[in-house]
Amino acid sequence: MSESVVITDVGPRDGLQNQPKILTTQERLALIRAIAEAGVPQIEVGSFVSPKAVPAMAGTDQIFANLELEAFATPSIALIPNMKGYELAAAAGARTVTMVLYASDGMAQKNAAMSMAEAELVTVEILKLAKQDGIEVIATIAVAFDCPFDGATDPAVTEAVVDRFINAGADQVVLADTIGAADPQQVRALTASLVKQHGAVKLGCHFHDTRAMGLANVFAAVESGIRRFDSSIAGLGGCPFAPGASGNVATDDIAMMLQQMGFETGIDLPKLLQASDLAQRLTGTAPGGRAKAWLQGHLTKLAS
Amino acid sequence: MSESVVITDVGPRDGLQNQPKILTTQERLALIRAIAEAGVPQIEVGSFVSPKAVPAMAGTDQIFANLELEAFATPSIALIPNMKGYELAAAAGARTVTMVLYASDGMAQKNAAMSMAEAELVTVEILKLAKQDGIEVIATIAVAFDCPFDGATDPAVTEAVVDRFINAGADQVVLADTIGAADPQQVRALTASLVKQHGAVKLGCHFHDTRAMGLANVFAAVESGIRRFDSSIAGLGGCPFAPGASGNVATDDIAMMLQQMGFETGIDLPKLLQASDLAQRLTGTAPGGRAKAWLQGHLTKLAS
Repeated sequence: MSESVVITDVGPRDGLQNQPKILTTQERLALIRAIAEAGVPQIEVGSFVSPKAVPAMAGTDQIFANLELEAFATPSIALIPNMKGYELAAAAGARTVTMVLYASDGMAQKNAAMSMAEAELVTVEILKLAKQDGIEVIATIAVAFDCPFDGATDPAVTEAVVDRFINAGADQVVLADTIGAADPQQVRALTASLVKQHGAVKLGCHFHDTRAMGLANVFAAVESGIRRFDSSIAGLGGCPFAPGASGNVATDDIAMMLQQMGFETGIDLPKLLQASDLAQRLTGTAPGGRAKAWLQGHLTKLAS
Repeated sequence: MSESVVITDVGPRDGLQNQPKILTTQERLALIRAIAEAGVPQIEVGSFVSPKAVPAMAGTDQIFANLELEAFATPSIALIPNMKGYELAAAAGARTVTMVLYASDGMAQKNAAMSMAEAELVTVEILKLAKQDGIEVIATIAVAFDCPFDGATDPAVTEAVVDRFINAGADQVVLADTIGAADPQQVRALTASLVKQHGAVKLGCHFHDTRAMGLANVFAAVESGIRRFDSSIAGLGGCPFAPGASGNVATDDIAMMLQQMGFETGIDLPKLLQASDLAQRLTGTAPGGRAKAWLQGHLTKLAS
C-alpha cells in the first residue's frame, strides 16, 4: 500500500488575494468546486479579513453559506488574522481555521501591526476558544525561512514557534516560505530537525516558486518525512506587476511529482488540469503549473 | 571552506542541436565565449556528427580551431558518436570527448542504429585509443532513468553500464535523463547506490526540465554526493514544435540554487545572465532559466 500525502489547495485564498482581478462570489465558488471535483483533499476557500484591506476576500461568509447549502464535502478552511476573524469564521460555519504566526518581527509588524509575541498571544487565545467550539486550528508560520524585512530567519526562532504551538495544541503547524526564498538544503535541515522532535503528523510546508525551487523544496521536505503540503491551483498568486514575483507552488506540479514518486494524493490529474484551466481563464494571470505543457500532452496517458 | 560543484554547460551542443535555428560559427563562438566569461568551468562546445544528420553542428572543427587560436582557457568538450567522430575530434585538437552509451536497446537503435552492446564495444575501443592519445573520455549514459521507446529503465541495467565503464577507465560517467522523465526519488535512489559503489568523484548527472523536476533532481543527486552536473545556458534545447518538450536544466537556475546552498561553482551570476540573454537573442527560442525573472530583479544584490 502506498503512502499518502495531503495537499491543501490555497489558491482560492492565497492565490486570489495576490493577483489583481477581483472575482465574484460565483466565480470563486466555481473555482473551489472545480478543485474539489479533481479530488484535492482540502481547500483554503477564503479569509475573514477586512474587505477594505483585501477586497478580493470580501464575502467569504457567502462562500461558506453556499458550500453549506450544497453539502460540499471537501474540508474547507478559512484564514483568519485575529479574534474578529475567528468570530466571523465560526459564525459562518468554518470547521477549520488557519492562523498566521510570524518568525520575524519585521513581517509581524508589516502584516499584522503586532510583534511576533503579540501575534502568538492572540493565537493562543483563539486556540482555547476553538477547542471549546470544536474547530480545528492550523498555525501557519510566515517567513519561516527568510523575511523580506529582517533577512534570513534563524532556524532556532522558527523551531521555537513550532514548539510552542505544538505544545499549545494546534492541530497542524505549517512552515511557510512566504516569499519563495528557501533552498532545499535549508528545508531539508529544518524539517528533519522538526520531524525528529515532533514527528511528522502535525507538520506541513507551504512553498512559493519565486526562485523555481518549489518542487526541490517539496522533495527536500518529503525526504524528512513531511506529508502535508499547501499549493495553489495553476500557481495562482504572486503579483504580475512586481518583477520576479511568483505564486505558490502549483497544485498541478506538486500532484504530478508526488504521484510519480508513488504517493497517494487522491487527485485526478486530468480533472486537476481542468481546474487549472479555469483558474487561468478566471484570473487572466495565473501562470499554470511549470510542467503544464508536458502534462497537457500526456492527458490520455494520465487518464488511463 | 565550501565544497565545489563542477558545472558543464552543454548548451552549445545539446542545446543548439535541439532547436530549429542554425547558428553561424561566429555566433556559436560568441555564445561559448560568453559562457566562459561567466566562469562556467567546462563547456561542451559542439559535436563531430554527420552534418547531414545534425546541420546545427557542422563546422565544429572550426570552433576548435578558433578556440585554439585565441588560447581559450576553459576546458572544451566535443561529443562524438563513433570512431569517425573520435578521429575528427582528435584531429581538431579536442582534449576531452563525450561518448554516448545507452541504458536501452530502443534508444541505442533509434539514435545510433546499434544495440546497447555494440555501442559499448565502440566506446571501449575509443577509450583505448584515447588513453594512448592522452584524451579524457566522458561516458554519458542516455535514458538512464526512462526511455521513450522501451519505457522505464531498470536501475540494475544503468548500474551495470556504469560499472563497466568505470572499470574500463572512463574519466567520468554521466547519468542522462534524456527526456526529462525522472523524479527526485528515483534519482536519489540510483545515485545513492552508485556513489556507495564507486564514490562520487567520477559520477555526474544530466537532467532535462520537461516535467519541471530538474532542480529537484539536481538536489536529490547532491544529497547523494554527486558534484558534477550538465546544464544548458538559458535552458536551451528541446523542440519548440513538440508540445511539452523542454530543454536541459538551465545553467542560470542550477548555478543560482547551488550557490545559495553554499557550493562554490566559480560562476558569476550577473555575467551568466548576460550569456543567457545572448542565447535567447541568438536562437529566439531559448526559454531562459525558470527563475530568470527573479534573478534579473536581483542583479545588483547578486553582483555585490
